[in-house]
Amino acid sequence: MKTMYDIAEFVLRAATLIKARQAEEMVNALEDFYRNHRGGKVLVMGAGRSGLVGRAFAMRLLHLGYNSYVLGETIVPAIRENDIAIAISGSGRTKLIVTAAEAVREAKSRLIAITSYADSPLGRMADIVVEVPGRTKYSKNEDYFARQILGINEPLAPLGTLFEDATQVFLDGIVAELMVRLKKTEEDLRLVHANIEL
Amino acid sequence: MKTMYDIAEFVLRAATLIKARQAEEMVNALEDFYRNHRGGKVLVMGAGRSGLVGRAFAMRLLHLGYNSYVLGETIVPAIRENDIAIAISGSGRTKLIVTAAEAVREAKSRLIAITSYADSPLGRMADIVVEVPGRTKYSKNEDYFARQILGINEPLAPLGTLFEDATQVFLDGIVAELMVRLKKTEEDLRLVHANIEL
Amino acid sequence: MKTMYDIAEFVLRAATLIKARQAEEMVNALEDFYRNHRGGKVLVMGAGRSGLVGRAFAMRLLHLGYNSYVLGETIVPAIRENDIAIAISGSGRTKLIVTAAEAVREAKSRLIAITSYADSPLGRMADIVVEVPGRTKYSKNEDYFARQILGINEPLAPLGTLFEDATQVFLDGIVAELMVRLKKTEEDLRLVHANIEL
Amino acid sequence: MKTMYDIAEFVLRAATLIKARQAEEMVNALEDFYRNHRGGKVLVMGAGRSGLVGRAFAMRLLHLGYNSYVLGETIVPAIRENDIAIAISGSGRTKLIVTAAEAVREAKSRLIAITSYADSPLGRMADIVVEVPGRTKYSKNEDYFARQILGINEPLAPLGTLFEDATQVFLDGIVAELMVRLKKTEEDLRLVHANIEL
Repeated sequence: MKTMYDIAEFVLRAATLIKARQAEEMVNALEDFYRNHRGGKVLVMGAGRSGLVGRAFAMRLLHLGYNSYVLGETIVPAIRENDIAIAISGSGRTKLIVTAAEAVREAKSRLIAITSYADSPLGRMADIVVEVPGRTKYSKNEDYFARQILGINEPLAPLGTLFEDATQVFLDGIVAELMVRLKKTEEDLRLVHANIEL
Repeated sequence: MKTMYDIAEFVLRAATLIKARQAEEMVNALEDFYRNHRGGKVLVMGAGRSGLVGRAFAMRLLHLGYNSYVLGETIVPAIRENDIAIAISGSGRTKLIVTAAEAVREAKSRLIAITSYADSPLGRMADIVVEVPGRTKYSKNEDYFARQILGINEPLAPLGTLFEDATQVFLDGIVAELMVRLKKTEEDLRLVHANIEL
Repeated sequence: MKTMYDIAEFVLRAATLIKARQAEEMVNALEDFYRNHRGGKVLVMGAGRSGLVGRAFAMRLLHLGYNSYVLGETIVPAIRENDIAIAISGSGRTKLIVTAAEAVREAKSRLIAITSYADSPLGRMADIVVEVPGRTKYSKNEDYFARQILGINEPLAPLGTLFEDATQVFLDGIVAELMVRLKKTEEDLRLVHANIEL
Repeated sequence: MKTMYDIAEFVLRAATLIKARQAEEMVNALEDFYRNHRGGKVLVMGAGRSGLVGRAFAMRLLHLGYNSYVLGETIVPAIRENDIAIAISGSGRTKLIVTAAEAVREAKSRLIAITSYADSPLGRMADIVVEVPGRTKYSKNEDYFARQILGINEPLAPLGTLFEDATQVFLDGIVAELMVRLKKTEEDLRLVHANIEL
């Protein structure tokens, strides 16, 4: 399982590269939101595999006690000024997500972007940006460069794989941090966990 | 479009066959729930095409101001004593839905069943049953009989089609009735309608 | 169940209003596709409740032996010149669906539009248009007019309900017609029906 | 981002703990399937967050040229003797997945299980088992033990997080290995990637 090891090592390095200040801003925003806007909504948005990573995070937000929703599911309420939207796009250029982010701006909700490129259309629109390294399917060259720096060789992680896996683990780190801050035990999460499971 | 006409006629007859008392019980339960349990949840459950009909209904419940959820989506919270589950199954025997309904019983939530067979495993478990005619994929003979009575000839609506289409229109009738009772205008619904659309 | 009856009556009238030539073109295209492009793909696209109606149709296409897919699900392959896309939008202006339809044009796939307005952005782009009456959330005035003609009074079917329910029954009519033409029995459909059910 | 680092380190250790023989069997089965059963289907099954990990894998299988499907989506065909089902469950006891696996046995399709417990109901049923370490929500004690061994301290990854993240990276390793064996370039994957994106 050489590649699995390589990807895991990439995620490990990503953990050291993510800017503490950016992650801190995101956790603070979510902690503050939990304490002061209990009726508020968190809408998670992502396309393709980034969307799946977003769903996994939204599920944990629900377990933590948030009213979380996922763009593209059946049940998506309107979001308003005091709500939060979290958009995930490695390139920061995924058309659907940029369009959705524009609608978030219009609704005056807060926008958190998770992307490899702070200087992308998505990144520039966001209130809070967390830069998660990884290649993206639109940026072959930059990506090649990123890989050189990170010492990972071609072609073992196609398309957005590295970004997606790093983001998944990053967001699970956010969940752990929120558990500590909100004093939630695993048992608390279990209680909110769906009891009618599919 | 002979078949479209036939199916629509079936739905029309179904509208006259559904027991007013059963429909009334369902609307009363939902009206009362809206007025007295604003934080409560409504979980809609169905498999296959019945699940799609359920989703369309859950979407309108959201527009009406309910906290509605759909079994099988990413975001499904635990449901409790004061919550409502609505299970849709033509045969009343769909394994997944019967299992889910048992979990609803255990959670002591209220259970509304929409089925062609009140005397099915699902029907017998429910607090409120609404019988919607239609054939189901498990009951060839009974179905044949139902069709004879309704004057519809083979084989123009395969599998559960008639039940599904009748249920879709029935539930849209429930939505209209709830709009009147809860004094909601179309504009009210539009305001809750997702503003970040996919 | 006065409203259920009204909606069913609307669907019945819709069945008489749909142009036979348009429905014929759609069935012919699908029949020809089945006979001559067995490896080809059919992609069904719709937003919100129209998307759910599309899914119910895609499921039956699968049962009939087509390789059908639904925009927005996990598994959506690229579509090519010989493939078919079916777009459902009452107003013919739903942004997401118009954008998707433009991509269909670029991929040179065939485009079938189901909409209330042949002269909408979606309608004008399509190779085949089927006009299904119904009001839409974007066209209050035209809608009012449509209702006057159809003799249905306010406000019993909010937002796109009438279009969605009429389209659902229309597409089930198409399924029935395809069963006859492709000589498929209900048993044939049952055999392709998922055997590992959720 | 201490926790992100810890989870990544866990995944790294997991990469060294996964039995090469088991991973090899899984890759061989998928390679052989690709070469000799081109029309065959691969059905991926998982509940909750394990289901999301499964979807991400199914998407890549599609990009690699497989006919992959995901249990719970709209489009799920029947599977037969020469098809493959891949079931993901940390505990190997998730009711829905065990039930689905039984149906797979009945359909005589091949069953690959990804679980932390080879000696679980799911593990015992499977033709091929890949043991991926991680704690699961059902096995507090064993989990505690597993963590002690792996040197990871409480409580930083709630419920099935470690299993899910390790499995995600493991499956992306499988994708990389299949790319090499099937001589697929990233460009090949891009070509099958959805061109009508949501």
